[in-house]
Amino acid sequence: MDIKSKRIAILSPVAWRTPPRAYGAWETVAGNITEGLVARGWKDVTLFATKESVTTAKLEGWVERGYEEDKSQIPLVSTCLHISKVMERSGEFDLIHNNFDYLPLTYLPLITTPMLTTIHGFSDPDILRVYHDHKDTYYVSISDSDRDPGLPYLATVYNGIDLSNLTFREAPGDKLVHYGRIHNDKGTHLAIEVAKKCGMDLIIAGIIQDQAYFDTLIKPHLNLSSIQYIGPVNPVQRDALLKEAYAVIHLNLIPERFGLVMAESMAAGVPVIAMDLGSCREVIADKRTGYLVKNVDEAVEAIGKIDRIDRNTCRHHVEENFTIDRMVAGYEKVYAEIFRREAQKK
Amino acid sequence: MDIKSKRIAILSPVAWRTPPRAYGAWETVAGNITEGLVARGWKDVTLFATKESVTTAKLEGWVERGYEEDKSQIPLVSTCLHISKVMERSGEFDLIHNNFDYLPLTYLPLITTPMLTTIHGFSDPDILRVYHDHKDTYYVSISDSDRDPGLPYLATVYNGIDLSNLTFREAPGDKLVHYGRIHNDKGTHLAIEVAKKCGMDLIIAGIIQDQAYFDTLIKPHLNLSSIQYIGPVNPVQRDALLKEAYAVIHLNLIPERFGLVMAESMAAGVPVIAMDLGSCREVIADKRTGYLVKNVDEAVEAIGKIDRIDRNTCRHHVEENFTIDRMVAGYEKVYAEIFRREAQKK
Repeated sequence: MDIKSKRIAILSPVAWRTPPRAYGAWETVAGNITEGLVARGWKDVTLFATKESVTTAKLEGWVERGYEEDKSQIPLVSTCLHISKVMERSGEFDLIHNNFDYLPLTYLPLITTPMLTTIHGFSDPDILRVYHDHKDTYYVSISDSDRDPGLPYLATVYNGIDLSNLTFREAPGDKLVHYGRIHNDKGTHLAIEVAKKCGMDLIIAGIIQDQAYFDTLIKPHLNLSSIQYIGPVNPVQRDALLKEAYAVIHLNLIPERFGLVMAESMAAGVPVIAMDLGSCREVIADKRTGYLVKNVDEAVEAIGKIDRIDRNTCRHHVEENFTIDRMVAGYEKVYAEIFRREAQKK
Repeated sequence: MDIKSKRIAILSPVAWRTPPRAYGAWETVAGNITEGLVARGWKDVTLFATKESVTTAKLEGWVERGYEEDKSQIPLVSTCLHISKVMERSGEFDLIHNNFDYLPLTYLPLITTPMLTTIHGFSDPDILRVYHDHKDTYYVSISDSDRDPGLPYLATVYNGIDLSNLTFREAPGDKLVHYGRIHNDKGTHLAIEVAKKCGMDLIIAGIIQDQAYFDTLIKPHLNLSSIQYIGPVNPVQRDALLKEAYAVIHLNLIPERFGLVMAESMAAGVPVIAMDLGSCREVIADKRTGYLVKNVDEAVEAIGKIDRIDRNTCRHHVEENFTIDRMVAGYEKVYAEIFRREAQKK
């Protein structure tokens, strides 16, 4: 049987629409996997996502809108209903590809369809209890650095990004840009420090994930000209934002799990200055597509060397490593290995 | 087959130990059901609860300690692991009796063992989405008032309490008592108003569920003599507390679902003055075991009529309606009905 005729269920979260209107990293990747499989000729792909989601695959949904977009929902209610609908219909699929964290694992002993779980991040060490309780299943990590040593991974498959709204521009902008979720973890306040020390303008974009952090460490520095916050950006707005960018400042304070922002920036030709934590050294080619730094002073120093970075190299680095097609090619190998192992069991 | 040979799994929550050390209403009831079944001659009862739980039935646990007693746990991690272990072993039981809210329902389509869910309360209207998605299963309400009109209930089974640490005392104490969880819903601040208007002493006991509520509306009124807060009480401490009670003040501001506190108080011979909301009129016999009131002034007036209440009547009312044995007799009828319906399906 042609492997591309296998029936694949892609389980996306229901925090946001798939693909998300603005923020929603896991939904973005789940959507990209779905579209990528269809583009590469997979014939029977079903996306389980919010009902208002958009896909060229078959769409199945139980929850009307994402619980982050409709706050009348209790997140766990939508989550467990959504997950259980996939499980209830598991017999209709040859593989469930779970992109929705640990809860789906707890239904595994009750179904016979194999499941692949892409671990998009460990939000807390305690969730490892669920993973460690389910070692007889299939896992993929999104970077070599974001792995738990106790889990049996089949592979690392880097996230792939949709290049269609990421225009490559040879000419750099004249501002620093920082975007993503506004949170201490992402070091938004450090981007402000860098901008001030360099005397450059800074544009900040993204959802405010920690309002107290924003109010105390970000808001007091905002002004109409040199340091602006423009709110969340959709892909079209993001493209316009990156046009302004001399460099993207990404001084994350916790290990990055993958770092979609870095890949997107490089796709637009924008070099990235990132904290050398977690996956950053897997996503950025140090000194070729940006600079890995250890603190604000090194970031300031790196700004002075941005003109040594060839913006074409940034774009090519993404095209070779972080496209949807590359990601889905990676998952195809993983799916094939799963089908091989499952066939051996029978 | 003797119905009492059927294999019953009682699913208790894992927020607290079963039975709880102090607070833990659902664990209290689940524990009482378990012990009551054993006492009435059921031969194969398994309690699924925290590993440190105490029972005369078989104990199965996955989570060492309750997540409310060990804050290093993410509640959902412990919850889903605990529930999934029951589901994984569902084939070993003839009936699962779920006392752990809505999440277990989402595993139902994947198992064949029937499940009875006692709905201990709807914490939010949104959780009805899960219940309404699972109408082909069995439900019990804990009072006639705490019912959703869209659900197919088999019966109301009132909670039964363990009388072993509830000493009946003919002679009243000279203080007002308010206990339970300290929260606006339970009207702790109204108990203080009543005490002040009557010029009587008040003892408050229970866990602080809303610290801001406690700090602003309760704490400022506390003093060493007339209005005291003594913290949570275990069953032995509760018995000593009720010895002091002239009446228990229970001016709940939301409909009571059942009201263990009211039953416990009456068991000790203590009349209860309760807000006429929800199940209170099902638990209290108005003017015979206490008074149903609509506000603080009516409660103050009721204090003046407490001597018309016969404390023996309070005790007998509990013995006739709210003992563990009465509760389990009620569940035996429900179990029998479930087995009858399941046999018809085959």
